[in-house]
Amino acid sequence: MSLNRIVSVLVIGAVAFVAMAARADDQDDIDYRQHIMNTLDEQMAAIQQIVQHRAPVDNLSIHLQIVAVTAATAKDAFTAKVPGGRAKPAVWANWTDFSKRLDELVASTAALARSAKDTGVEATAAKLGTLNCKGCHDIYLEEKK
Amino acid sequence: MSLNRIVSVLVIGAVAFVAMAARADDQDDIDYRQHIMNTLDEQMAAIQQIVQHRAPVDNLSIHLQIVAVTAATAKDAFTAKVPGGRAKPAVWANWTDFSKRLDELVASTAALARSAKDTGVEATAAKLGTLNCKGCHDIYLEEKK
Repeated sequence: MSLNRIVSVLVIGAVAFVAMAARADDQDDIDYRQHIMNTLDEQMAAIQQIVQHRAPVDNLSIHLQIVAVTAATAKDAFTAKVPGGRAKPAVWANWTDFSKRLDELVASTAALARSAKDTGVEATAAKLGTLNCKGCHDIYLEEKK
Repeated sequence: MSLNRIVSVLVIGAVAFVAMAARADDQDDIDYRQHIMNTLDEQMAAIQQIVQHRAPVDNLSIHLQIVAVTAATAKDAFTAKVPGGRAKPAVWANWTDFSKRLDELVASTAALARSAKDTGVEATAAKLGTLNCKGCHDIYLEEKK
């Protein structure tokens, strides 16, 4: 094999590797947003336990912060119009509304995190209903099969 | 019913409610730490996708921050000596080592989050191996059945 041929194979190989590494397929997009939404589920479950005094109440603020920061990654995760998983097509059909609701989730959980720090668990628990998770899930999330 | 009796019932009721609300049982302790460890799993999976360029690379720093903040809640979650779930008894038998490793996880993921912001995804990806998840899991985490 000539040196030119070897170099050529290496270059093609390198280009192919970069292209492969840089391209997320549809399943990647679905996986990524599921990691984010599962994180929100786990953290909301921890928050639920705290509100019921079944977990350390001093951690309420930090879990709400985690929800806020995680929710801030969700918009990127849903930008690619890839139906699948439990996302309803309404996510993309109503993108303006969906992304506005994600922004509101970020803002309201960040505010609740500050509330938890400043006013404690009972005062903050009373405000958690304002998150209205169900209002968004009814429109955008398929029921579990 | 006399007023005294009514007050007495209300007081006993209130005390019972507070006691019930304030007492986490063993399953609560297990549930809480599982919500935290599942969050770490989901976030590490997102980080793995980013390193493989299968998710938005600009989010690497934020996911590493979420891991750091979440890991900071794990020590509280394991403080209660409650075997169960996938935690090996070694967690409590070697508490000094286990909690030191959690502290190291917090510090190293916070440093990696800064690295991702300052030096980008490739330079940070090369350092992710230093987290040595397996080193800790081999000692403290039961295999999935």
